[in-house]
Amino acid sequence: MWGVIATWEMAAEGVHLASEKLKNGASAADALQVAIEDVENNPEFQSVGFGGLPNEAGIVEMDAAFMNGNTFAVGAVAGITDGKNPIAVARKLSSETFNSFLVGAGATAYAKNNNFKMQNMLTDDAAKKWQERVKEVAKNNLSPYDGHDTVGVVTLSGDAMTCGTSTSGLFMKKPGRVGDSPLAGSGFYVDSQVGGACATGLGEDLMKGVLSFAIVEKMRAGLTPQEACDTVVYDFSEKLAKAYGKSGAMSLIAMDHQGNWGVATNVEFTFCVATKNLAPTVYLANPGANGTTVIQAITTK
Amino acid sequence: MWGVIATWEMAAEGVHLASEKLKNGASAADALQVAIEDVENNPEFQSVGFGGLPNEAGIVEMDAAFMNGNTFAVGAVAGITDGKNPIAVARKLSSETFNSFLVGAGATAYAKNNNFKMQNMLTDDAAKKWQERVKEVAKNNLSPYDGHDTVGVVTLSGDAMTCGTSTSGLFMKKPGRVGDSPLAGSGFYVDSQVGGACATGLGEDLMKGVLSFAIVEKMRAGLTPQEACDTVVYDFSEKLAKAYGKSGAMSLIAMDHQGNWGVATNVEFTFCVATKNLAPTVYLANPGANGTTVIQAITTK
Repeated sequence: MWGVIATWEMAAEGVHLASEKLKNGASAADALQVAIEDVENNPEFQSVGFGGLPNEAGIVEMDAAFMNGNTFAVGAVAGITDGKNPIAVARKLSSETFNSFLVGAGATAYAKNNNFKMQNMLTDDAAKKWQERVKEVAKNNLSPYDGHDTVGVVTLSGDAMTCGTSTSGLFMKKPGRVGDSPLAGSGFYVDSQVGGACATGLGEDLMKGVLSFAIVEKMRAGLTPQEACDTVVYDFSEKLAKAYGKSGAMSLIAMDHQGNWGVATNVEFTFCVATKNLAPTVYLANPGANGTTVIQAITTK
Repeated sequence: MWGVIATWEMAAEGVHLASEKLKNGASAADALQVAIEDVENNPEFQSVGFGGLPNEAGIVEMDAAFMNGNTFAVGAVAGITDGKNPIAVARKLSSETFNSFLVGAGATAYAKNNNFKMQNMLTDDAAKKWQERVKEVAKNNLSPYDGHDTVGVVTLSGDAMTCGTSTSGLFMKKPGRVGDSPLAGSGFYVDSQVGGACATGLGEDLMKGVLSFAIVEKMRAGLTPQEACDTVVYDFSEKLAKAYGKSGAMSLIAMDHQGNWGVATNVEFTFCVATKNLAPTVYLANPGANGTTVIQAITTK
């Protein structure tokens, strides 16, 4: 069996590319990297990689992670700047015994020293949006925070699974702010004998619940990916609503080791799936009644 | 009921101070901060706070986190420099809706801007150890990595629980390296209705298993803290041994919402406990037969 599931419609082309590779016997890791790099490289997607919206200081700081479900190896970067493909750096870091999670200037230095492609990640368009927002916030006393569409991907190829994430984080975040995306358990988790999960939404709230790991553990206990996502996401979203009056946005995707998949979300959410038995498809998900999720296909390519 | 459990004998005085506060009705959070700051402030402890051993570049970079088990609020810093008490900064960050996890220069800037005490954290003694190690590594081609004794604490006061961690990380780490300590789920987790757990050991391996959260989930399912620690730690240590030939050091502590506690470890490990029913005591733990832990009291104060 092979399969790939990814957060947000922006991953449609990446999932298509990954599915072509998986069909031809590519490894789960190679397919994952293809899918995420496609999103990172597209300047139209303003929450990931090149073209990502900058922090409060006008700098694009990116977070990414890679996990191997056979060995549990994790590689991650947070607050990296100028690295063209943070997911590639994270994947390389997952092969390190020590120092496999690097942040800030240390992460950027590692990418440079290991000959990863470096470039200024701030596009003219993103810089303009930042300037406008700075003015708006000054004038209207708005909350500056907006946008947090992480690309998160789970792939399956035969007996092997991987997962990964990449994001430029919250628009207008404080310098050095890290969300859930590079944090094992919160932003992502995978065990090839069980399945994997990834998150997108408000990182500050997602890490309160360690939701990706929680979903994998529910699948380990025998729940389907859809049951696992529904149980974990709606239960925890309700706990946050009790504690804070409301929960931040949280959308989770999961795939098990047989290619079954599921999602749950407390906001409108798009995602993409392809498996040996399912042509690449974009879906729309919304929270339904009684802790369920309403899912409909919106495109087939 | 009240209680406090902490990793390593170095926390003995901190646990004593915390127990005195808890006895007099202090909050779980205040007691936790007292316990961790005592370790941070003591220059004799070379893996936490002032006197901590530096990174490869000779700079003391510290990680810390705080979690509130009633609200799931998490605050964390990684790679902070010159902040006298990283746990105090992490606790303050846990009250932020956005930007509650800051790394590198952004974390240090937040501490300065919020009037936390700043000081050079590199002692003469730590600088000397670093110079010696640089020479040794150059001469003998040794692995430079050594030492990772994080202070991790769980506190209980009535219906409220908190947990927290503080560390200067792996001696001779690459600049920007982050271990498990500031990562919710891996280094720490607490739910006041269930219990809390903290980890110390090789962060790169601890984050592969998200072990603190895993222990809390086992307690939620009805296991005692000791059963939960044994099950999670020895199972995962064995998985890593299968994948890599050996597992990095991992020692986990847990306390439930009634003040029951447990630990498990794959190396010799000391820890400290005090509860309403137990005077502050330092224990020695070792892995036992068949996935059990051998625990003996070594001091009572």
